Amino acid sequence: MNEFELIRRFFSRPTADGAVRLGVGDDAAVVAPTPGHDLLLAIDTMVEGRHFFANVPPATLGHKILAVNLSDMAAMGARPRWALLSGTLPDSDPDWVAAFSGGLFALAERYDVSIVGGDTVRGSRSFTLAIVGEAPVGCALTRSGAQAGDDIWVSGTLGDAALALAAMQGHITLDSTTLTALRTRLEMPDPRVALGVKLRRLAHAALDVSDGLIGDLGHVLNASSVGADVELPLLPCHSALKTLLNGANRPLALRCLLAGGDDYELCFTAPPVARDALIALSHELALPLTRIGVIAAASGLTVFDEQRLPLPSLPAAYNHFSNGLRP
Amino acid sequence: MNEFELIRRFFSRPTADGAVRLGVGDDAAVVAPTPGHDLLLAIDTMVEGRHFFANVPPATLGHKILAVNLSDMAAMGARPRWALLSGTLPDSDPDWVAAFSGGLFALAERYDVSIVGGDTVRGSRSFTLAIVGEAPVGCALTRSGAQAGDDIWVSGTLGDAALALAAMQGHITLDSTTLTALRTRLEMPDPRVALGVKLRRLAHAALDVSDGLIGDLGHVLNASSVGADVELPLLPCHSALKTLLNGANRPLALRCLLAGGDDYELCFTAPPVARDALIALSHELALPLTRIGVIAAASGLTVFDEQRLPLPSLPAAYNHFSNGLRP
Repeated sequence: MNEFELIRRFFSRPTADGAVRLGVGDDAAVVAPTPGHDLLLAIDTMVEGRHFFANVPPATLGHKILAVNLSDMAAMGARPRWALLSGTLPDSDPDWVAAFSGGLFALAERYDVSIVGGDTVRGSRSFTLAIVGEAPVGCALTRSGAQAGDDIWVSGTLGDAALALAAMQGHITLDSTTLTALRTRLEMPDPRVALGVKLRRLAHAALDVSDGLIGDLGHVLNASSVGADVELPLLPCHSALKTLLNGANRPLALRCLLAGGDDYELCFTAPPVARDALIALSHELALPLTRIGVIAAASGLTVFDEQRLPLPSLPAAYNHFSNGLRP
Repeated sequence: MNEFELIRRFFSRPTADGAVRLGVGDDAAVVAPTPGHDLLLAIDTMVEGRHFFANVPPATLGHKILAVNLSDMAAMGARPRWALLSGTLPDSDPDWVAAFSGGLFALAERYDVSIVGGDTVRGSRSFTLAIVGEAPVGCALTRSGAQAGDDIWVSGTLGDAALALAAMQGHITLDSTTLTALRTRLEMPDPRVALGVKLRRLAHAALDVSDGLIGDLGHVLNASSVGADVELPLLPCHSALKTLLNGANRPLALRCLLAGGDDYELCFTAPPVARDALIALSHELALPLTRIGVIAAASGLTVFDEQRLPLPSLPAAYNHFSNGLRP
């Protein structure tokens, strides 16, 4: 199957989005932006051996390459609209590509995102997806708006994906029910798009936790010229991770919780006056939103342990050019 | 040097574009689209060993990954505006990245394109760039507007890049002046952005010639449900290619001319009434525009040789999943 057949067969689906004037099949797609809105632009790449294992089910890969980009849109409070996919493949195995495409489009349809173009080339397996979203002019959430006195919040639970990976790599043992649940969090993350849109009017700053809480929260602190105090006992996590935290594997559990990649939860700051609204929003979305600390005027990030003592050292954030496979 | 330092040092430059509300450094860039315009979206990937040699000067790579995307914008009659770059690199050699970035930004500045975001990951070397352009609502040029009786035109010369590659691979010998000139066409293609914008009101259909004239013109014919007669002697080419056409290397010369990749010229159709305007435009842009044939109502593509006899077979277009290295 050649490049053009591959695209036609697996990546050209009709869209219900009337703003798509021209989709896959020309030199570029043509779409109509919504008046009164800014555009949000992001891109993310996943490389085999680096971001996923060679034997991962292709449907989960199709899901994840879109999910990580939707997560960027969520972090900005944007509504995701249109995506471009570039796939580098070692071969053109139709079954593999069909499954990948199935995972991709299932998630795209759930969020009304249209795949409007792409590129396929031969090489070692990797995927790059670029996404275009929209937010009302001036309403996008950034990393730079955090203010001293803000509460720090996170959605969902932290460390699930890193814990799954640790188990898959043999560093720890988990019962099969737990592993299955955590592995779904690693391979099929659920981007917090609905939350992001609602946070536009509530949060001062936001980002998604993709490289680990400490490193990512650090970006907010740098961009906002503030510091933070975070309470370890408040960090929301799976019960399996909580158990590990209190045993011999505490160092690994801390790494998963504080510096594990692939959480794709939102971390945001909001003034205390927004607490009731955020609790109501948590119920509305059926998504835990947890206060984990406060923004401080002085720079620096301190994590307090169960005895309210500062952790003497913090695990490093994931870095694509200095770490090996996560975590 | 880690991922964040790499991006900060080499890919975060201030932009003069007031529409860029937020550039590199958050989860997504924020830009303000121009009212009354459609958005044009495209993406292209270049993989080492497939689209470029390992020893190619990095500045030319930075140029080319943007140039091929600008060429897609040109083909649509769009003004390119904002780009996202994802680079997969085997290491973070600062000299290499600095040179790559220099080539990228030199071209970006020439066309007022802002690099507003990106991603860097470790892996075998490849680059993906996504571009966003604009065209007045409904004015984008597509592949589907060709009409029987239209002239078929191409800009510049065809086959230069493929001929350079053939020489670099030892299939033919070229004098060093010629090779240098043709190699520049291969490594530093000049996207026809100014032409594309001007063609909005003159052409019926357009695309860029990236995989070879025959294959690419074939896309126009399919999309427009028409056919074409093309005159080989009219095809504009370098004098070195013309010489080869009349000698023992004629088959290779035909492949370069008709199916050589990486031309990045525009092929477009226009009614005969537009001829004078196109000749004037050619002078204005100091860019050859050559009539090479006509659109026919009946489907099929025929190339007539110097004796006005149809070529019995046409070289296949470049296909990323069935051919080896070009040409």
